[in-house]
Amino acid sequence: MTTTYDLAVLGGGPGGFDAAVEAAAAGLKVALVEAADLGGTCLNHGCIPTKLWLGATSVLEELAAQTKVRVAAGEVRVDFAALQARKDRHLAATRKAMAQRLGQLGVDLLPGRGRIAGANTLEVLGAEATRTLDFRKLLVATGSRPAAFPGLMPDGARVLDSTGFLALPAMPKSLIVVGGGFIGLEMAQAAHRLGAHITIVDALPRLAGLEDPEVSKALEAVFKRQGWDIRLGVKVTSVTTQGDSAVLSMLTSAEAPAEELVAECALVAVGRRPNSTDLGLESLGVALVGPGYINTNENLEAAPDVFAVGDVNGRMLLAHAASHQAHYVVERLLDKTRGAYDSGPVPSILYGSPEVLRVGLMAGEAQAQGDDVLVSRAQLIANPIAQAHAATQGFVKCVWRQGRVAGITAVGADVSRMAVSASLIVQAGWTREEAANFMFPHPTLDESLKAALLADKEAA
Amino acid sequence: MTTTYDLAVLGGGPGGFDAAVEAAAAGLKVALVEAADLGGTCLNHGCIPTKLWLGATSVLEELAAQTKVRVAAGEVRVDFAALQARKDRHLAATRKAMAQRLGQLGVDLLPGRGRIAGANTLEVLGAEATRTLDFRKLLVATGSRPAAFPGLMPDGARVLDSTGFLALPAMPKSLIVVGGGFIGLEMAQAAHRLGAHITIVDALPRLAGLEDPEVSKALEAVFKRQGWDIRLGVKVTSVTTQGDSAVLSMLTSAEAPAEELVAECALVAVGRRPNSTDLGLESLGVALVGPGYINTNENLEAAPDVFAVGDVNGRMLLAHAASHQAHYVVERLLDKTRGAYDSGPVPSILYGSPEVLRVGLMAGEAQAQGDDVLVSRAQLIANPIAQAHAATQGFVKCVWRQGRVAGITAVGADVSRMAVSASLIVQAGWTREEAANFMFPHPTLDESLKAALLADKEAA
Repeated sequence: MTTTYDLAVLGGGPGGFDAAVEAAAAGLKVALVEAADLGGTCLNHGCIPTKLWLGATSVLEELAAQTKVRVAAGEVRVDFAALQARKDRHLAATRKAMAQRLGQLGVDLLPGRGRIAGANTLEVLGAEATRTLDFRKLLVATGSRPAAFPGLMPDGARVLDSTGFLALPAMPKSLIVVGGGFIGLEMAQAAHRLGAHITIVDALPRLAGLEDPEVSKALEAVFKRQGWDIRLGVKVTSVTTQGDSAVLSMLTSAEAPAEELVAECALVAVGRRPNSTDLGLESLGVALVGPGYINTNENLEAAPDVFAVGDVNGRMLLAHAASHQAHYVVERLLDKTRGAYDSGPVPSILYGSPEVLRVGLMAGEAQAQGDDVLVSRAQLIANPIAQAHAATQGFVKCVWRQGRVAGITAVGADVSRMAVSASLIVQAGWTREEAANFMFPHPTLDESLKAALLADKEAA
Repeated sequence: MTTTYDLAVLGGGPGGFDAAVEAAAAGLKVALVEAADLGGTCLNHGCIPTKLWLGATSVLEELAAQTKVRVAAGEVRVDFAALQARKDRHLAATRKAMAQRLGQLGVDLLPGRGRIAGANTLEVLGAEATRTLDFRKLLVATGSRPAAFPGLMPDGARVLDSTGFLALPAMPKSLIVVGGGFIGLEMAQAAHRLGAHITIVDALPRLAGLEDPEVSKALEAVFKRQGWDIRLGVKVTSVTTQGDSAVLSMLTSAEAPAEELVAECALVAVGRRPNSTDLGLESLGVALVGPGYINTNENLEAAPDVFAVGDVNGRMLLAHAASHQAHYVVERLLDKTRGAYDSGPVPSILYGSPEVLRVGLMAGEAQAQGDDVLVSRAQLIANPIAQAHAATQGFVKCVWRQGRVAGITAVGADVSRMAVSASLIVQAGWTREEAANFMFPHPTLDESLKAALLADKEAA
């Protein structure tokens, strides 16, 4: 006899775990299949360890800022080995707490790889045995993994992906980061604080290529001032371990000869790929699109009785997007909603110093939709809290469509503190009048959001 | 011939300045009368200098936190003289920018004390001459000053009010703070970081007596751990300068003999009093209430053609409340609104480490209104960003009435970052369902707000 679960979940990352917890709390019988560690990429190899690095080292940025204005002086050393040990303890404790929560709720946590064995049947290939279970509904939340391309293959020696990089026992003295997106830039910032000389290489003509171009420009200015070597618009032909070094070959133009960069380590952060193979999805008629993303309909269904959430469906590769989709799926299972999935505004954040915040439409995106677009801006330098922290570089920029806020982006120290309010304001689609009538607390860095909302609008 | 102004403003603090700017930008002819410095208490002797102290010294808190978890080590010295010089430069630059803004907008800035000389006539008693001007409307925004009581009189020697304290050339080694409200606690935190041993004395049985009792308890626990001497429920009979010391006498109970506390300085922070005398308000029939607050009707009118905003009307002694009221008054003058003044939720923040955030109704206040009140809570220790900063003490607490959020309070490091979103959520009166459907970015400290909103509710 096999057990029939109301819900079987493949993957214990933010999407899968949250779905399992919420469904079980509502009384459903749930199985959660996880091939590696509870918490998935976000907890174990992504957002959380990076934030532990950045949190522990933010004291260095604060000290540098106050030293620059000659108010403070001193020396702070961060013990990287101690930080890694603390990180590992935190991750282990969190995984343990997650497992306990599942246990309390009666969720069966099944270690192993899940594979669809037929309609409403799943095989779980554990280390020692294979187990079969039946399900009424299946949620695929298997996430993603670092992308690798020929010539850009992490080798576990001097060429690492984000997973390998976060596990380093010592921080290298020099680091080449291939990829100037959020993952590469967060890790580069942490490495910089921890003493590594940073070289960033990207095929795009600007850092953070998905962001507003003004944000890219601000980031480049700050990082160049920190002494980073930034190589944009170049084609990387290979990154390999040679002896004790990582060696990168690149073409800076069609005519120029190949150039080499050498560092103690290289981090390859060129995007992520969905974990959608070897799951038996084809047998249920699930379609894969692009680099293998599970195609989902407006209800996040991939096939009858099969849902997919999180990175693997390719809608938005962010942990909170996965959790939000998971909540929707459980609401559907419980018949609490029948409408199509609506993400609402999806905030994204680059952590570090500076930080980047983005939510809603950027000016270029809104224009591409054929709208008349206006923008308004405020500089952080006018803000007393930015002044107090001697971190005055950056701005908040609002995107307006038909008199309403359609998007907000910001760059600068601590701008992530405006993420939730910016999301709420974009969701509400505030007019200038609504912004003027709302009481922002004083003094706060958040008043630079107010200032941007009230500033004169100009053509985008 | 005197000039007739559309609007005469008494006081160039947040309320008066913002009103003058907004009215002038809308085309009104405006005079702004300021007896001292543009920016008022907030800029010159209150929120801003305190935040410059706290911002410059937050590096010490970060270092202490990471040292405690053995991730960082080092030594940071803050040069108090340099900090004071930077503070003074910032304040001067801000005042200059404010004056320039008034000039650009054609506001006549009149230095001197304003006094009502008859209906729609004002005398401005400048240093050298007295000038008379006529106005159509008058806005009184004269603010407040530190309260002083017999036996508790700042003497400019060792017994100081907040103004004198912020002007100190050197931080004393020991400090008695009389008054455990937000002003006293912010200044005590800055002084603590800058090396002063802190003693806090208050007549109330708990610190931050206007806050949720759980917040008071959390604050006391942190400050005691920092070595503060906290004396609550005592009656201070006198604070005087004796030689090179400040000496405080107090009664700890009706029976006990008087006790003395001695420190290098004492700061008296026992509240504030409105600046409402000698303005000639009586001649217009303006009524004063309580300790001298200008009585205003639902339209913030104190008499025909006379409005009062900010501390002086006693509604809410906060800079952002003054600015918000000022915006309303200008909207009325411009005939853009005819409704009664509605503050919306008024956030208040204690800065430092820990911080306190409060917006909307607290549980006790809601119960006093006869409502069935539920509360829900989340502890910061469960939050990965709190863990990353090794600052895990504190919580977020939500107050629910009829299934909707009526108030939010929080205590802990950096909880002020949730102020704007908490205000927006209280204003919207979210249900639990609405909280569950909103996408909070991960990982953020703000997720502890989400966790509190989604936590099980219990009786208050």
